[in-house]
Amino acid sequence: MPKKLRKKQTLLLEGDVCTYNAFIEKGILRSYATDEKGNEHVIQFAFEGWWISDLASFLQGSNSTHTIEAIEDSELLLLTYTAREDLMSKLPVFETYQRVLLQNAFIAFQSRVNAALNSSAEEKYLKLTSAYPDIIARVPQHMIASFLGLTPETLSRVRKQISLRR
Amino acid sequence: MPKKLRKKQTLLLEGDVCTYNAFIEKGILRSYATDEKGNEHVIQFAFEGWWISDLASFLQGSNSTHTIEAIEDSELLLLTYTAREDLMSKLPVFETYQRVLLQNAFIAFQSRVNAALNSSAEEKYLKLTSAYPDIIARVPQHMIASFLGLTPETLSRVRKQISLRR
Repeated sequence: MPKKLRKKQTLLLEGDVCTYNAFIEKGILRSYATDEKGNEHVIQFAFEGWWISDLASFLQGSNSTHTIEAIEDSELLLLTYTAREDLMSKLPVFETYQRVLLQNAFIAFQSRVNAALNSSAEEKYLKLTSAYPDIIARVPQHMIASFLGLTPETLSRVRKQISLRR
Repeated sequence: MPKKLRKKQTLLLEGDVCTYNAFIEKGILRSYATDEKGNEHVIQFAFEGWWISDLASFLQGSNSTHTIEAIEDSELLLLTYTAREDLMSKLPVFETYQRVLLQNAFIAFQSRVNAALNSSAEEKYLKLTSAYPDIIARVPQHMIASFLGLTPETLSRVRKQISLRR
Protein backbone atom coordinates (compact mmCIF):
# COMPACT_ATOMS: atom_id res chain seq x y z
CA MET A 1 0.00 0.00 0.00
CA PRO A 2 1.60 3.32 -1.07
CA LYS A 3 1.82 6.16 1.44
CA LYS A 4 3.26 9.66 1.28
CA LEU A 5 4.62 11.49 4.30
CA ARG A 6 5.47 15.15 4.58
CA LYS A 7 8.69 16.16 6.34
CA LYS A 8 8.27 15.80 10.15
CA GLN A 9 5.07 13.76 9.73
CA THR A 10 5.03 10.57 11.81
CA LEU A 11 4.38 7.07 10.53
CA LEU A 12 4.24 5.62 14.04
CA LEU A 13 3.88 7.13 17.50
CA GLU A 14 5.59 5.58 20.54
CA GLY A 15 2.97 3.56 22.42
CA ASP A 16 0.91 2.62 19.36
CA VAL A 17 1.12 -0.80 17.74
CA CYS A 18 3.31 -0.80 14.62
CA THR A 19 1.04 -2.37 12.02
CA TYR A 20 3.31 -1.81 9.01
CA ASN A 21 6.80 -2.53 7.84
CA ALA A 22 7.63 0.40 5.55
CA PHE A 23 9.77 0.21 2.42
CA ILE A 24 11.22 3.60 1.46
CA GLU A 25 10.90 4.47 -2.20
CA LYS A 26 11.95 8.08 -1.75
CA GLY A 27 13.07 10.14 1.24
CA ILE A 28 14.58 9.45 4.65
CA LEU A 29 12.94 8.38 7.88
CA ARG A 30 14.26 7.99 11.39
CA SER A 31 13.08 6.09 14.43
CA TYR A 32 13.76 7.37 17.90
CA ALA A 33 13.05 6.51 21.51
CA THR A 34 12.48 9.02 24.28
CA ASP A 35 14.16 8.54 27.67
CA GLU A 36 12.75 9.33 31.12
CA LYS A 37 14.04 12.91 30.91
CA GLY A 38 12.32 13.47 27.57
CA ASN A 39 15.52 13.31 25.48
CA GLU A 40 15.25 11.77 22.02
CA HIS A 41 17.67 9.00 21.04
CA VAL A 42 17.87 8.24 17.34
CA ILE A 43 17.80 4.46 16.87
CA GLN A 44 17.87 4.20 13.09
CA PHE A 45 17.96 6.22 9.88
CA ALA A 46 16.40 4.64 6.80
CA PHE A 47 17.16 5.77 3.26
CA GLU A 48 15.76 4.85 -0.16
CA GLY A 49 15.60 1.07 -0.60
CA TRP A 50 15.54 0.35 3.14
CA TRP A 51 12.82 -0.91 5.43
CA ILE A 52 11.82 0.66 8.72
CA SER A 53 9.48 -0.42 11.52
CA ASP A 54 9.46 -0.97 15.26
CA LEU A 55 10.25 -4.63 14.66
CA ALA A 56 9.30 -5.92 18.11
CA SER A 57 5.93 -4.19 17.92
CA PHE A 58 5.34 -5.20 14.28
CA LEU A 59 6.08 -8.87 14.91
CA GLN A 60 4.57 -9.28 18.37
CA GLY A 61 1.71 -6.77 18.25
CA SER A 62 3.11 -5.10 21.38
CA ASN A 63 3.11 -1.34 21.98
CA SER A 64 5.93 0.34 20.12
CA THR A 65 8.82 1.91 21.99
CA HIS A 66 9.88 4.01 19.00
CA THR A 67 8.44 6.91 17.06
CA ILE A 68 9.03 6.83 13.30
CA GLU A 69 9.13 10.17 11.50
CA ALA A 70 9.97 11.49 8.04
CA ILE A 71 13.10 13.67 7.85
CA GLU A 72 12.26 14.65 4.24
CA ASP A 73 9.04 14.40 2.21
CA SER A 74 8.94 10.65 1.63
CA GLU A 75 7.18 7.98 -0.41
CA LEU A 76 6.65 4.58 1.17
CA LEU A 77 5.22 1.16 0.47
CA LEU A 78 3.54 -0.25 3.57
CA LEU A 79 3.40 -3.98 4.20
CA THR A 80 1.10 -5.41 6.87
CA TYR A 81 2.12 -8.40 8.99
CA THR A 82 -0.41 -10.61 7.17
CA ALA A 83 0.78 -9.48 3.75
CA ARG A 84 4.37 -10.21 4.76
CA GLU A 85 3.48 -13.71 6.05
CA ASP A 86 1.50 -14.32 2.91
CA LEU A 87 4.32 -13.27 0.60
CA MET A 88 6.83 -15.39 2.50
CA SER A 89 4.71 -18.52 2.33
CA LYS A 90 4.04 -18.07 -1.40
CA LEU A 91 7.46 -16.85 -2.49
CA PRO A 92 10.44 -18.63 -0.92
CA VAL A 93 12.65 -15.93 -2.44
CA PHE A 94 10.80 -13.31 -0.39
CA GLU A 95 11.48 -15.28 2.77
CA THR A 96 15.16 -15.45 1.83
CA TYR A 97 15.11 -11.69 1.19
CA GLN A 98 13.53 -11.06 4.61
CA ARG A 99 16.11 -13.30 6.28
CA VAL A 100 18.98 -11.47 4.60
CA LEU A 101 17.48 -8.10 5.59
CA LEU A 102 17.31 -9.29 9.20
CA GLN A 103 20.90 -10.53 9.05
CA ASN A 104 22.05 -7.16 7.75
CA ALA A 105 20.04 -5.29 10.35
CA PHE A 106 21.51 -7.46 13.08
CA ILE A 107 25.05 -6.96 11.79
CA ALA A 108 24.52 -3.19 11.62
CA PHE A 109 23.22 -3.22 15.20
CA GLN A 110 26.18 -5.29 16.40
CA SER A 111 28.59 -3.00 14.65
CA ARG A 112 27.01 0.04 16.39
CA VAL A 113 27.40 -1.58 19.79
CA ASN A 114 31.05 -2.36 18.98
CA ALA A 115 31.64 1.20 17.80
CA ALA A 116 30.13 2.53 21.02
CA LEU A 117 32.64 0.45 22.98
CA ASN A 118 35.74 0.92 20.89
CA SER A 119 35.60 3.96 18.63
CA SER A 120 36.33 7.61 19.25
CA ALA A 121 33.75 10.27 18.35
CA GLU A 122 35.74 11.06 15.19
CA GLU A 123 35.98 7.42 14.11
CA LYS A 124 32.23 6.94 14.55
CA TYR A 125 31.47 10.08 12.55
CA LEU A 126 33.88 9.19 9.73
CA LYS A 127 32.56 5.64 9.52
CA LEU A 128 28.96 6.82 9.27
CA THR A 129 29.63 9.54 6.71
CA SER A 130 31.81 7.38 4.52
CA ALA A 131 29.12 4.66 4.49
CA TYR A 132 26.34 7.21 3.78
CA PRO A 133 27.89 10.39 2.32
CA ASP A 134 24.36 11.73 1.65
CA ILE A 135 23.64 11.91 5.32
CA ILE A 136 25.59 15.13 5.87
CA ALA A 137 23.45 17.13 3.46
CA ARG A 138 20.14 15.44 4.18
CA VAL A 139 20.02 14.86 7.94
CA PRO A 140 20.18 17.62 10.59
CA GLN A 141 23.38 17.56 12.64
CA HIS A 142 21.64 17.14 16.00
CA MET A 143 20.05 13.90 14.75
CA ILE A 144 23.41 12.58 13.57
CA ALA A 145 24.84 13.46 16.99
CA SER A 146 22.00 11.62 18.73
CA PHE A 147 22.47 8.54 16.52
CA LEU A 148 26.19 8.48 17.35
CA GLY A 149 25.58 9.02 21.07
CA LEU A 150 27.42 12.38 21.02
CA THR A 151 26.35 15.81 22.20
CA PRO A 152 25.79 18.32 19.35
CA GLU A 153 28.77 20.28 20.74
CA THR A 154 31.10 17.27 20.50
CA LEU A 155 29.94 16.60 16.94
CA SER A 156 30.59 20.25 15.95
CA ARG A 157 34.08 20.03 17.40
CA VAL A 158 34.78 16.77 15.54
CA ARG A 159 33.58 18.25 12.22
CA LYS A 160 35.77 21.33 12.74
CA GLN A 161 38.86 19.21 13.47
CA ILE A 162 38.26 17.13 10.35
CA SER A 163 37.75 20.18 8.10
CA LEU A 164 40.92 21.85 9.44
CA ARG A 165 42.99 18.83 8.40
CA ARG A 166 41.67 18.84 4.82
CA MET B 1 29.44 -31.42 14.15
CA PRO B 2 29.39 -32.09 17.92
CA LYS B 3 31.86 -30.29 20.15
CA LYS B 4 32.46 -30.26 23.88
CA LEU B 5 33.88 -27.30 25.76
CA ARG B 6 35.19 -27.22 29.30
CA LYS B 7 34.28 -24.30 31.54
CA LYS B 8 36.28 -21.17 30.52
CA GLN B 9 37.36 -22.77 27.24
CA THR B 10 36.86 -20.50 24.22
CA LEU B 11 34.99 -21.37 21.06
CA LEU B 12 36.11 -18.19 19.29
CA LEU B 13 38.82 -15.64 19.97
CA GLU B 14 38.35 -11.95 19.12
CA GLY B 15 40.17 -11.30 15.84
CA ASP B 16 39.67 -14.79 14.39
CA VAL B 17 37.04 -15.56 11.76
CA CYS B 18 33.93 -17.15 13.25
CA THR B 19 33.49 -20.25 11.10
CA TYR B 20 30.65 -21.82 13.10
CA ASN B 21 27.22 -21.00 14.37
CA ALA B 22 26.92 -23.03 17.58
CA PHE B 23 23.73 -24.63 18.88
CA ILE B 24 23.88 -25.28 22.63
CA GLU B 25 22.71 -28.72 23.69
CA LYS B 26 23.96 -28.37 27.25
CA GLY B 27 25.67 -25.59 29.19
CA ILE B 28 25.92 -21.82 28.93
CA LEU B 29 28.18 -19.68 26.79
CA ARG B 30 28.78 -15.97 26.66
CA SER B 31 30.18 -13.63 24.06
CA TYR B 32 32.05 -10.51 25.06
CA ALA B 33 33.93 -7.62 23.51
CA THR B 34 36.95 -5.92 25.03
CA ASP B 35 37.19 -2.12 25.05
CA GLU B 36 40.30 0.03 24.60
CA LYS B 37 41.02 -0.09 28.33
CA GLY B 38 40.87 -3.89 28.38
CA ASN B 39 37.46 -4.09 30.09
CA GLU B 40 35.20 -6.95 29.07
CA HIS B 41 31.61 -6.18 28.02
CA VAL B 42 29.26 -9.14 27.93
CA ILE B 43 27.23 -8.99 24.71
CA GLN B 44 25.20 -12.16 25.00
CA PHE B 45 24.51 -15.18 27.18
CA ALA B 46 23.33 -18.34 25.44
CA PHE B 47 21.58 -21.19 27.25
CA GLU B 48 20.43 -24.67 26.18
CA GLY B 49 18.47 -24.52 22.91
CA TRP B 50 20.01 -21.22 21.78
CA TRP B 51 22.48 -20.38 19.06
CA ILE B 52 25.61 -18.30 19.49
CA SER B 53 28.15 -16.87 17.04
CA ASP B 54 29.75 -13.59 16.08
CA LEU B 55 27.10 -13.15 13.42
CA ALA B 56 28.86 -10.45 11.39
CA SER B 57 32.03 -12.53 11.23
CA PHE B 58 30.16 -15.79 10.51
CA LEU B 59 28.14 -14.31 7.65
CA GLN B 60 30.75 -12.01 6.13
CA GLY B 61 33.96 -13.88 6.88
CA SER B 62 35.32 -10.77 8.61
CA ASN B 63 37.45 -10.85 11.76
CA SER B 64 35.33 -11.33 14.84
CA THR B 65 34.97 -8.55 17.38
CA HIS B 66 33.75 -10.94 20.10
CA THR B 67 35.23 -13.76 22.12
CA ILE B 68 32.91 -16.69 22.82
CA GLU B 69 33.57 -18.71 25.95
CA ALA B 70 31.90 -21.49 27.96
CA ILE B 71 30.63 -20.47 31.41
CA GLU B 72 29.95 -24.13 32.27
CA ASP B 73 31.11 -27.40 30.72
CA SER B 74 29.05 -27.35 27.52
CA GLU B 75 28.01 -29.53 24.61
CA LEU B 76 27.49 -27.91 21.23
CA LEU B 77 26.50 -28.67 17.69
CA LEU B 78 28.55 -26.61 15.24
CA LEU B 79 27.12 -25.56 11.89
CA THR B 80 29.39 -24.17 9.17
CA TYR B 81 28.26 -21.38 6.84
CA THR B 82 28.09 -23.83 3.92
CA ALA B 83 26.09 -26.37 5.92
CA ARG B 84 23.66 -23.62 6.95
CA GLU B 85 23.22 -22.41 3.34
CA ASP B 86 22.78 -25.98 2.22
CA LEU B 87 20.13 -26.76 4.83
CA MET B 88 18.24 -23.56 4.03
CA SER B 89 18.15 -24.26 0.31
CA LYS B 90 16.98 -27.85 0.83
CA LEU B 91 14.59 -27.30 3.72
CA PRO B 92 12.37 -24.21 3.47
CA VAL B 93 11.34 -24.86 7.07
CA PHE B 94 14.98 -24.42 8.17
CA GLU B 95 15.11 -21.08 6.42
CA THR B 96 11.91 -20.05 8.22
CA TYR B 97 13.47 -21.20 11.48
CA GLN B 98 16.61 -19.16 10.82
CA ARG B 99 14.50 -16.12 9.96
CA VAL B 100 12.48 -16.43 13.17
CA LEU B 101 15.70 -16.84 15.20
CA LEU B 102 17.04 -13.66 13.64
CA GLN B 103 13.79 -11.83 14.38
CA ASN B 104 13.95 -12.92 18.01
CA ALA B 105 17.61 -11.96 18.29
CA PHE B 106 16.85 -8.54 16.80
CA ILE B 107 13.91 -8.00 19.16
CA ALA B 108 16.04 -9.00 22.16
CA PHE B 109 18.75 -6.58 21.04
CA GLN B 110 16.22 -3.77 20.57
CA SER B 111 14.74 -4.46 23.97
CA ARG B 112 18.20 -4.22 25.57
CA VAL B 113 18.83 -0.85 23.94
CA ASN B 114 15.43 0.36 25.19
CA ALA B 115 16.15 -0.92 28.68
CA ALA B 116 19.48 0.90 28.68
CA LEU B 117 17.63 4.14 27.90
CA ASN B 118 14.61 3.77 30.12
CA SER B 119 15.08 1.28 32.94
CA SER B 120 16.65 1.58 36.36
CA ALA B 121 19.35 -0.87 37.48
CA GLU B 122 16.75 -2.74 39.54
CA GLU B 123 14.27 -2.97 36.68
CA LYS B 124 16.94 -4.34 34.34
CA TYR B 125 18.03 -6.93 36.89
CA LEU B 126 14.48 -8.05 37.69
CA LYS B 127 13.58 -8.30 34.01
CA LEU B 128 16.62 -10.46 33.25
CA THR B 129 16.20 -12.75 36.25
CA SER B 130 12.48 -13.24 35.76
CA ALA B 131 13.07 -14.12 32.08
CA TYR B 132 15.96 -16.49 32.98
CA PRO B 133 15.68 -17.51 36.65
CA ASP B 134 18.55 -20.01 36.14
CA ILE B 135 20.97 -17.21 35.46
CA ILE B 136 21.41 -16.30 39.14
CA ALA B 137 22.73 -19.73 40.08
CA ARG B 138 24.64 -20.46 36.88
CA VAL B 139 26.32 -17.20 35.85
CA PRO B 140 28.85 -15.28 37.98
CA GLN B 141 27.56 -11.94 39.25
CA HIS B 142 30.26 -9.84 37.61
CA MET B 143 29.20 -11.20 34.20
CA ILE B 144 25.55 -10.37 34.88
CA ALA B 145 26.64 -6.86 35.93
CA SER B 146 28.65 -6.46 32.71
CA PHE B 147 25.72 -7.65 30.59
CA LEU B 148 23.42 -5.12 32.27
CA GLY B 149 25.95 -2.30 31.96
CA LEU B 150 26.26 -1.98 35.77
CA THR B 151 29.29 -2.03 38.04
CA PRO B 152 29.52 -5.13 40.27
CA GLU B 153 29.03 -2.79 43.26
CA THR B 154 25.76 -1.40 41.88
CA LEU B 155 24.51 -4.92 41.16
CA SER B 156 25.34 -6.02 44.75
CA ARG B 157 23.44 -3.03 46.12
CA VAL B 158 20.42 -3.79 43.91
CA ARG B 159 20.38 -7.46 44.99
CA LYS B 160 20.56 -6.44 48.65
CA GLN B 161 17.66 -3.99 48.30
CA ILE B 162 15.53 -6.65 46.61
CA SER B 163 16.30 -9.30 49.24
CA LEU B 164 15.49 -6.88 52.09
CA ARG B 165 12.03 -6.28 50.66
CA ARG B 166 11.18 -9.98 50.44
